[in-house]
Amino acid sequence: LKIAVIGVGLIGGSVALAARDRAGAEVTGFDPAGVPPHVADGAGTLDEAVLGADITVVCAPVAALPAAVAAALEASDGIVTDVGSTKRSVVAGVDDPRFIGGHPLAGAETAGVEHARAGLFEGATWYLTPTARTEGILYDRLYRFLAGIGARPQALDAATHDTLMAAVSHLPHVLANVLVAQAARALDAEGERLPATGPSFRDATRVAGAPTAIWRDIYLSNADALGPLLDDTIARLTQVREALAAHDADGIVAWNDHAAGERRRLLDAQLTGADAVSLRVSVPNRPGVVAEVALALGRGSVNIVDMALHPAADNATGTIELWVAAAQADSARGLIEDLGLPVA
Amino acid sequence: LKIAVIGVGLIGGSVALAARDRAGAEVTGFDPAGVPPHVADGAGTLDEAVLGADITVVCAPVAALPAAVAAALEASDGIVTDVGSTKRSVVAGVDDPRFIGGHPLAGAETAGVEHARAGLFEGATWYLTPTARTEGILYDRLYRFLAGIGARPQALDAATHDTLMAAVSHLPHVLANVLVAQAARALDAEGERLPATGPSFRDATRVAGAPTAIWRDIYLSNADALGPLLDDTIARLTQVREALAAHDADGIVAWNDHAAGERRRLLDAQLTGADAVSLRVSVPNRPGVVAEVALALGRGSVNIVDMALHPAADNATGTIELWVAAAQADSARGLIEDLGLPVA
Repeated sequence: LKIAVIGVGLIGGSVALAARDRAGAEVTGFDPAGVPPHVADGAGTLDEAVLGADITVVCAPVAALPAAVAAALEASDGIVTDVGSTKRSVVAGVDDPRFIGGHPLAGAETAGVEHARAGLFEGATWYLTPTARTEGILYDRLYRFLAGIGARPQALDAATHDTLMAAVSHLPHVLANVLVAQAARALDAEGERLPATGPSFRDATRVAGAPTAIWRDIYLSNADALGPLLDDTIARLTQVREALAAHDADGIVAWNDHAAGERRRLLDAQLTGADAVSLRVSVPNRPGVVAEVALALGRGSVNIVDMALHPAADNATGTIELWVAAAQADSARGLIEDLGLPVA
Repeated sequence: LKIAVIGVGLIGGSVALAARDRAGAEVTGFDPAGVPPHVADGAGTLDEAVLGADITVVCAPVAALPAAVAAALEASDGIVTDVGSTKRSVVAGVDDPRFIGGHPLAGAETAGVEHARAGLFEGATWYLTPTARTEGILYDRLYRFLAGIGARPQALDAATHDTLMAAVSHLPHVLANVLVAQAARALDAEGERLPATGPSFRDATRVAGAPTAIWRDIYLSNADALGPLLDDTIARLTQVREALAAHDADGIVAWNDHAAGERRRLLDAQLTGADAVSLRVSVPNRPGVVAEVALALGRGSVNIVDMALHPAADNATGTIELWVAAAQADSARGLIEDLGLPVA
């Protein structure tokens, strides 16, 4: 297995270390600032690094992705993926069945290759955004590589990914920025008096002022998903503001109780079953069918714990073996049958 | 030392356990729902519990504080303090030199006396809000008790306390509520699909839907401090919204860089020096002088690491011995001399 990493910072460096230590891969890298020798077996220009790579992982800021991904596709015959935090812009900008968008939910606070480590992705969700054009065999190969370095790959279409990330990542980052601004103003008003802050403030502002070079692109590339969430946030804050001004105790109670219920519901939704069962799906051997299955299960809240592709001898059909949580097996079966595919 | 605790939940129970285990106190308690026998040496009605107590700690929701504090003052001759998260309402409602408002920054997520523990306040800031009427000897006694159970008492006037808490605690709670509402909406829109969330979301929503019985009172009693912060938050979010709509990259960059700088400044402001030095202040033996000194140092960002009162033989004058961080000794000296008090 040969893995190329383009852009060797915290994420790229960790992919390189994990690929070598956990997947036994030969790793080459390219970074404008150079590649530390302990991270990769070889380094060179982008073209040199990706030459002969089975999988190229492009770890560049979102705005630089379409060009970097295109260059990697041009210079290699293998799979190309990326780790950008928003997915629509790169997926729309690259039209090649060898490209599969990706986004690991890992790392961040301590940027830089010096913090890279092979275990960064252990247990981390790694979103993949295949399209109908994605070849199943390539998706399977990428899936196995990511599972092999400890991540939990999960298929999601690019638009859904960006909408969800706007709510669970980009909006919290915006609010963290606003909170430090408020606290800094309080600090100024009290003549640089140090406010001893409780855990709620530290938790809520840990991601404030996240690296601008990365986050400028995230905010701008997801502006149309984030914008309506900001409108909604402003509307909700205005309601709270009015309830406070009116000393509306019932309104405050209802609002806070509702939030408690929603938090419980979110925590429940993240619970996953412990026992995995296997489903075997007979599929025609055509591009897109694996992505189709993965996307259908993803949309139906079914998490694919593991997956294997078995091509048949005639090479025209094959079997996808899927492991899903026991509690989700029935709904997985239904979703796959809805696609017209038989489940054994 | 005899300590009475009125309201025995997480905070009250922890005060009781800490008072017995760490300060060797005899502890009595009152709670409408009963006092678990392992927490206190005795229990009874409010009047029975506070009878003969040197210090009574009232741990009731903010709206119930003025009445409970008044009852405790009525039934005892000792110091009465409270642990409410907002301070102006109770301080304004109780006009007795034996009452000193308090607020420990500790606990919360796991409410209930079953989670009480003697170490809850170890290293925690415990705000005290003495007024000009507070007697120094009583302030000193309360300060020692709290330091003895591991807390770091810090004097602050009630209005400043409430303004700071609005920024560093109450606003983060409001935003956490709004964030779970947004994520729940995204969950609904995606047909109950489970969004794998990163650490930023978990951190930002940990305090969402905090116990309504407590937080209704906090929000309402601090509405006039929290309201303007909500207005400012709405204004800042509107600016971000407009920058996104205009794809204003420079505006987003400036905003995010500014937040990064403010976060650094807040972290710096919380650093405290390691070496403490002692300052001896000669004071007239009159009510309020200790509070005056503590408040002046608090306003000047000087943290009092420890404190002792030494009355002179004539009982008309005395000495306050203060330990402050070495790096803050000069500014402490200046602040005290500004009050017209000589520092040895």
